[in-house]
Amino acid sequence: LEYDLVNAARKAGITILGPNTMGIANPHINLHCSASTAMPRAGKTAIVAQSGNLGTQLLAFATEQGIGIRGFCGSGNEAMVSIEDFLEGFEVDEKTRVVLLYIESVKNGRRFFEAAQRVSCRKPVVLLKGGRTSAGKRAAASHTGAMLSDDRVFDAMCRQSGVIKVDQPMELLDLAAALASIPLPRGPRVAIMTWGGGWGVVTCDLCQLRGLEVPALDQPIVNRIDTILPPYWSRANPVDLVGDPDLSTPMSILEELVRWDGCDAVINLGMMGRRLFSERFTTAVAAVDPKTTLEILENARRITADFELNFIRRSVDLMQELEKPVVAVSLLKDHSDQTVHRIPGSRYNGLVYETPERAVNTLEKLVAYKRFLRSGF
Amino acid sequence: LEYDLVNAARKAGITILGPNTMGIANPHINLHCSASTAMPRAGKTAIVAQSGNLGTQLLAFATEQGIGIRGFCGSGNEAMVSIEDFLEGFEVDEKTRVVLLYIESVKNGRRFFEAAQRVSCRKPVVLLKGGRTSAGKRAAASHTGAMLSDDRVFDAMCRQSGVIKVDQPMELLDLAAALASIPLPRGPRVAIMTWGGGWGVVTCDLCQLRGLEVPALDQPIVNRIDTILPPYWSRANPVDLVGDPDLSTPMSILEELVRWDGCDAVINLGMMGRRLFSERFTTAVAAVDPKTTLEILENARRITADFELNFIRRSVDLMQELEKPVVAVSLLKDHSDQTVHRIPGSRYNGLVYETPERAVNTLEKLVAYKRFLRSGF
Repeated sequence: LEYDLVNAARKAGITILGPNTMGIANPHINLHCSASTAMPRAGKTAIVAQSGNLGTQLLAFATEQGIGIRGFCGSGNEAMVSIEDFLEGFEVDEKTRVVLLYIESVKNGRRFFEAAQRVSCRKPVVLLKGGRTSAGKRAAASHTGAMLSDDRVFDAMCRQSGVIKVDQPMELLDLAAALASIPLPRGPRVAIMTWGGGWGVVTCDLCQLRGLEVPALDQPIVNRIDTILPPYWSRANPVDLVGDPDLSTPMSILEELVRWDGCDAVINLGMMGRRLFSERFTTAVAAVDPKTTLEILENARRITADFELNFIRRSVDLMQELEKPVVAVSLLKDHSDQTVHRIPGSRYNGLVYETPERAVNTLEKLVAYKRFLRSGF
Repeated sequence: LEYDLVNAARKAGITILGPNTMGIANPHINLHCSASTAMPRAGKTAIVAQSGNLGTQLLAFATEQGIGIRGFCGSGNEAMVSIEDFLEGFEVDEKTRVVLLYIESVKNGRRFFEAAQRVSCRKPVVLLKGGRTSAGKRAAASHTGAMLSDDRVFDAMCRQSGVIKVDQPMELLDLAAALASIPLPRGPRVAIMTWGGGWGVVTCDLCQLRGLEVPALDQPIVNRIDTILPPYWSRANPVDLVGDPDLSTPMSILEELVRWDGCDAVINLGMMGRRLFSERFTTAVAAVDPKTTLEILENARRITADFELNFIRRSVDLMQELEKPVVAVSLLKDHSDQTVHRIPGSRYNGLVYETPERAVNTLEKLVAYKRFLRSGF
């Protein structure tokens, strides 16, 4: 029956999406024709998902995180329009800068990977594969009727065609946020600046476990930072700001590290989120100290909010000047804080994750993608 | 100098915490004496962190997630009071049910692991080790002056003493939420129920990749679910509710799966979060349909909010009756939704994560801990 319907539609010049689709969205023309209530802003990230509910949830999370969407499609069981067709569309669509795919099966493997490689050379393709294990394959077979495939072959094809493969749904969005916001790192060397020691240590561990490097500082950069930090600073990477309350210090350290030839990316920990910290701190003080006036509270809030905005602006300017990525991990975050902080008129955006693991995981995959682009395919 | 100070204090009968500490907190007596602005509710989870900023951030996230705290201490550089002392305290403290540790080094390895094993036999110890890699070790040395240790030895000692080791800071909290809220699974077999296919497939994959099993349904359970779901249901694990809008269906399926002898734990996907979905959905409809009255909106909100509360209550009742863990992954979550949903008067709590990866990762570690408890140490 389905086959007859597809043939009839083809003859009549009608394109059928699905079946088993949750619809489409194109925020650029304010079209939100899906079973999702999410209304993401217009942007550069295209999402195609063979699973409707996974796709629409990604759309909801993207909206929450401030990730702009080029278009969304639940491709479903793909009787007529397949993931291979979408890839060929994204290849030529100038508005698409990042492609996210959730797939359970591919009808034409050769066509898929040839298209994926062509797209990957021009813009990143990030992919989550459902049905990678025998349990997952059984579930996929009863979901979209996906055919079995050999995962080792599939993995090898992804590597060869430059596809960025992820293991967990939220990684798709972390990568989309990064790929649409920051330049690619030229190599694996990470400089870290932190407001406190523990997060620095944990971030170092995560970097090395993921194949990134945390190089020692060389003498010239130590000398430059000597002029900024108090004499007891650690003289090591991570650069520990040991809770220094001076708000000009993070700006200067950030600038030194981004300009430092010894690193390919900068992670800053605990710089963003100070607005919230200072809000909560002054509120707590005000509760017990009657001399704390509304004016003092308001001042603290304004100063730290200004700092955050300036810090993000400076990050974006430095990224633009030096083509080196800067990734922030926030101290605290509330529901108004988004992963992507847009600075109007800039090529790049501020990128703020909630945890170091997300920052490190993302950088690792950007380094691998850059290596693919360099390899000349 | 530090040594002299410690000796003088000891003679005078004074206990010194730190140096390099962010303070202490004991919500049970409303004591919040730290540099953190977080005021978590009183509960069962004790946190000791050699890093002050990591510790206080954990405290902030715990507050946000609704995780109750027995006590917090930034133990810092441990001139006098060490992590070994804390462990011995938690061993006998009846209010402590879960212990979270962030450590960079241990002064007396034998004493630490002997205490850790004794505690682990009575209550779980969850540990994040900073300085696991050469980069992390260098950073830890300049942070708390941690001595080098062999990670293979440390890992082996953790396994032997039943310590639950995690890799990333947020896992500490995911485990604390679970260990204080749900019973331990008796084995690795997971039943999954889902509102849509894709999340089910991804969750299956994650289970198998983490060493959990997703067993096929046997005939008796298929027969029972046949009486609940429409005839076209998948007859497989995950049980796909294919978007069935009837709010009694999830309750019945949950009950069948928890009562099913073929599984040791139940993950439900997309049951929680419907309140938010329905709020957004009705708001969207109201924006274009003038016939949607405030009453209809209010009704939808109330019905789905009631459903969520009942679903959590039912989960908690079933856990209490059958001592089998139930873990929810929400469809959508806003800032008012917490990981731990307390049901007054119940031994267990509702446990709701935002993503399947967190649910699966947590269950994997609970299964391993249960295995340790069974092994007779």
